Amino acid sequence: MVAERDAVVLLSGGLDSATTLAIARSKGFRCHALSFDYGQRHKQELEAASAVAARGGAAEHRIARLDMGFIGGSALTDMDLAVPTEPTSGIPITYVPARNTVFLAMALAWAEALGAFDIFIGVNAVDYSGYPDCRPAFLQAFESLANVATRAGIEGTPCRIQAPLLFLTKAEIIKAGLALGVDYALTLSCYAPGATGYPCGTCDACRLRAKGFAEAGLADPALVSSTRL
Amino acid sequence: MVAERDAVVLLSGGLDSATTLAIARSKGFRCHALSFDYGQRHKQELEAASAVAARGGAAEHRIARLDMGFIGGSALTDMDLAVPTEPTSGIPITYVPARNTVFLAMALAWAEALGAFDIFIGVNAVDYSGYPDCRPAFLQAFESLANVATRAGIEGTPCRIQAPLLFLTKAEIIKAGLALGVDYALTLSCYAPGATGYPCGTCDACRLRAKGFAEAGLADPALVSSTRL
Repeated sequence: MVAERDAVVLLSGGLDSATTLAIARSKGFRCHALSFDYGQRHKQELEAASAVAARGGAAEHRIARLDMGFIGGSALTDMDLAVPTEPTSGIPITYVPARNTVFLAMALAWAEALGAFDIFIGVNAVDYSGYPDCRPAFLQAFESLANVATRAGIEGTPCRIQAPLLFLTKAEIIKAGLALGVDYALTLSCYAPGATGYPCGTCDACRLRAKGFAEAGLADPALVSSTRL
Repeated sequence: MVAERDAVVLLSGGLDSATTLAIARSKGFRCHALSFDYGQRHKQELEAASAVAARGGAAEHRIARLDMGFIGGSALTDMDLAVPTEPTSGIPITYVPARNTVFLAMALAWAEALGAFDIFIGVNAVDYSGYPDCRPAFLQAFESLANVATRAGIEGTPCRIQAPLLFLTKAEIIKAGLALGVDYALTLSCYAPGATGYPCGTCDACRLRAKGFAEAGLADPALVSSTRL
């Protein structure tokens, strides 16, 4: 029997990262799930992340606090900026400056301390919001960085940034997750959920998710789950 | 008159970052100084950073909280691991996994929100502790990352990671800082200071600093300053 290798899995509580955790588990990784309390308006996603980590077989789940509120510039961390309810052109106001760079840097720190060389992130460059830090060039640059930034970089064990959803449509992601037993009723994608955690249905994340379920020919279980009503 | 450009300057409160702030100011940058409360044992450095920022002409100074304590693996964040009092071989136990990657990622986030394209960091690859994330290859890789990670990367304004101390000896750093009016009495380099903030004199950071002042033929004003006695 091959010993399980360790991996750090970034887990937001949304559909994509829940699927990514399932894929990492299916590849035989012992998964250390990492979420961030970074002052996001949709803090309910952290409860979803905990439920997804537990149900998804993560070996452990950490929620790290990150003081990004002072940075501003995003509708996700500045409550004075409204979350758009219709598509916008260019990079949307929900973009949080350098967020995935910060998240991956923290994952890299934990991976190095754990002796893990694989970091999973659920970014997607097909049905996505146009954020610069979801593009393949970003992931390649981060992997290059990881391999000179750490002890591993000096000792010669390469670090891999694994983004298994990168080139999938949202519908393909959903089908892959269902095949691996992901319970999407537990996930929360919405940027502006109500107090009970029920998705708004109009933000960019809700629209992308709805498109994915529609294209997959499926109903979104989070919209009918009693856990959110 | 040329308008000042904005820069983010990483400021630990030590000798190197105080000098870096002075150099950034001398180049005409409006400096947004950034320090981190990341669970370090030498938390007194944050008071030093505030004093250095104020005296050094920073336009503002932020101390961001970062939850890195759970990551472990370093004598700087794990109080059960002792700070070595003599030189060790290899990467020392005071290395904090991926710390400069995390710090630069946060600086990048703030720079992007500010509309700044310059980030200053006081790393040094001559009189240093052998940390992987102080090497030129690391800085080059981070700069490449920054230029694909952000809005600037898409819109074509290059981000620069400026490390003006990279190839200077500690003595050269001290002389450069003194020429720019840096008050080294305000700085704290020590990893394990006493409760009053007086340096231990035996940790790696203290030894490198003492070597620098000795080679420069100068007394360290922090060792005679009444502010630390």
